[in-house]
Amino acid sequence: MWGDLESVGLDASSGGYRRFAWTRTDHDLREWFAGECAERGLDLTTDRMGNQWAWWGDPDAAVAAGDPGVVVGSHLDSVPEGGAFDGPLGVVSGLAAVDALREQQVTPSRPIGVVNFADEEGARFGVACAGSRVITGAMHPERARGLRDVDGMTLAEAFELAGGDPQHLGRDDETLRRVGTFVELHIEQGRTLEDLGRAVGVGSDIWPHGRWRIDVPGMANHAGTTAMDDREDAMLGVATAILAARRAAEQHGALATVGKVEVVPGGVNAIPSCATCWLDARGPDAVAVRRVVDEIRDVVADFDALVTEESWTPSTAFDPALAARIAATLAAAPIIGTGAGHDAGILANAGVPTAMLFVRNPTGVSHSPDEWAAADDCVAGVGALAAVLADLAGPTAA
Amino acid sequence: MWGDLESVGLDASSGGYRRFAWTRTDHDLREWFAGECAERGLDLTTDRMGNQWAWWGDPDAAVAAGDPGVVVGSHLDSVPEGGAFDGPLGVVSGLAAVDALREQQVTPSRPIGVVNFADEEGARFGVACAGSRVITGAMHPERARGLRDVDGMTLAEAFELAGGDPQHLGRDDETLRRVGTFVELHIEQGRTLEDLGRAVGVGSDIWPHGRWRIDVPGMANHAGTTAMDDREDAMLGVATAILAARRAAEQHGALATVGKVEVVPGGVNAIPSCATCWLDARGPDAVAVRRVVDEIRDVVADFDALVTEESWTPSTAFDPALAARIAATLAAAPIIGTGAGHDAGILANAGVPTAMLFVRNPTGVSHSPDEWAAADDCVAGVGALAAVLADLAGPTAA
Repeated sequence: MWGDLESVGLDASSGGYRRFAWTRTDHDLREWFAGECAERGLDLTTDRMGNQWAWWGDPDAAVAAGDPGVVVGSHLDSVPEGGAFDGPLGVVSGLAAVDALREQQVTPSRPIGVVNFADEEGARFGVACAGSRVITGAMHPERARGLRDVDGMTLAEAFELAGGDPQHLGRDDETLRRVGTFVELHIEQGRTLEDLGRAVGVGSDIWPHGRWRIDVPGMANHAGTTAMDDREDAMLGVATAILAARRAAEQHGALATVGKVEVVPGGVNAIPSCATCWLDARGPDAVAVRRVVDEIRDVVADFDALVTEESWTPSTAFDPALAARIAATLAAAPIIGTGAGHDAGILANAGVPTAMLFVRNPTGVSHSPDEWAAADDCVAGVGALAAVLADLAGPTAA
Repeated sequence: MWGDLESVGLDASSGGYRRFAWTRTDHDLREWFAGECAERGLDLTTDRMGNQWAWWGDPDAAVAAGDPGVVVGSHLDSVPEGGAFDGPLGVVSGLAAVDALREQQVTPSRPIGVVNFADEEGARFGVACAGSRVITGAMHPERARGLRDVDGMTLAEAFELAGGDPQHLGRDDETLRRVGTFVELHIEQGRTLEDLGRAVGVGSDIWPHGRWRIDVPGMANHAGTTAMDDREDAMLGVATAILAARRAAEQHGALATVGKVEVVPGGVNAIPSCATCWLDARGPDAVAVRRVVDEIRDVVADFDALVTEESWTPSTAFDPALAARIAATLAAAPIIGTGAGHDAGILANAGVPTAMLFVRNPTGVSHSPDEWAAADDCVAGVGALAAVLADLAGPTAA
């Protein structure tokens, strides 16, 4: 399966992936997922937001019996110049865990699902976990439809071009009630497991995190003829925000990043009339994160900048009993936190008993071609996922 | 003529112009110029770089007679979100000055030319005055052909799409030797004339100016999971360069601007692996400008940044005797300097006796929709240009 995926959306010059939601590349990935599910005789359904769910067993019968299924999986899309593992490792491991259970002749007592969530990274339309947010009602369909990519295309238009019906987007209780338990396997986006010398860990919680847009106004003018004193240069506000974010994050024990900047008009000899940057801030402590944002807001107030909160996700604790049960199943696997958002967090906030498994990433690097997991650790991840499924959806038949 | 041009390349939402070289909009402007020349019976030729020259009289006969013609004109392209006057005022005034001479029944003793220079702003391919640089040999045709726009198209490809032969680009002595004198009329890009209470001024010199690219390396990583201490964040180097440019320019009495930034990968939750910004620096004193660049270079050395000089144009003095003669013709018009580059500067450096006329700009704003000249002042500019032509290419016939 890894070999099939290796070339899809790969930029050969950089070694990075560009797998954006509702593109041709995304279509190829979804077709690949459908094909793998068909080979395994899994029943594929697509929900109101285009997330793909493949079922082994009848999920609705299980709902009727009061014991809905166990779902594993993750996403196949990527950030710009992303790595190969973030997302696909969870989907591939989910399918491989199904194969492992069948080799072990396990007959599940509950249906087992494998999900491919749509648009997890938000790389194209700016909102992460759009697929899970919409079906859980965490994002209103009207807002989702109106999101625009850099070319000005709305998510509704892209969704329709990809063959979907944008009017149908929305909360999908029929899909959600089938999910009795969700376990997302993901490559670790840090070095905790490497430092602990363990191949697999269990997630405890997702830090609170948010995104803010900082719009700095300026006055367009010619770079070669306008005295320094006469300028209202929007770029200065952005530069000040970038450095203030760094300083405040270090001071308050949080993380703050400016990874995206847009400048109008963006000419080498034009003093910008407007410059916008985006702040990503998170950390174990929500109060500290808020303090970072407030300090940046104070600093850029001198530039009449407008700071707009684009998203805020409070701390998300995964089900502690489930995490403990999984850790016990996995020979006392360590329980670790994460600063990154995941569809698992959205489902947990929607009340679904949810857990995460992490696979060791020796570089600790994420969202980059340097992100990497050893083959042995990937196999260990599949083994762990199969063991968790056998525990949650057993009993094992000889 | 102004009414014809008003809508071409206008972005109605911003009120700014986007007239980039070798685009459809540029084609429309060139067609308009050709039509105006045809209406006046001027002979239109296009040189090896696509600059358009319209002649009243036989320029080659004048070359043979040892007294080549007088050329006026400017350019029709614009920066992104540019104003209506920068460039077109010089072209329109040139044509209007021809009309005025004919109304006055002047029979020129030397041929009179009106030029529309191609790609003056460098908005698309990054090098200002590409049209005059190539025909004077200031830019090698191989370099010109290889320049790329943001979509990766080369100037050679764009030139060919616009109907030209890119292999033919190059120094054009046949065209240049026809230009005995060049007088470029331009809207002032500052408030000197406004402060002096004068409608028209004469140019003395163009300040030394240059462009530098600052490439800051980083290490791509996830914004939500990478400790602040573990980061190599390219964005910090850019922010530091922006603020250092401001500080150094103020200190050394020069101008320094960062108007363009590019970030890779440019995702909100991705620590940049690479960030590039461009510095525009100039001032009356070349040593001070060099000092500004050196200080920025020192500051960004901490980020292992690479500072590359993309262009450097030394101070350009226009012909002092010609400027004095023109000022005398125009009732002691003031003689003023400028921080902006112009095709007139490129021609002056190529040894052509060159002058500039500036028209008052009450806002002092340039490269913006706020750039503006009063109708009376534009008429005064045409009158001045006609008087200069009558003086340089007279005698007047009753």
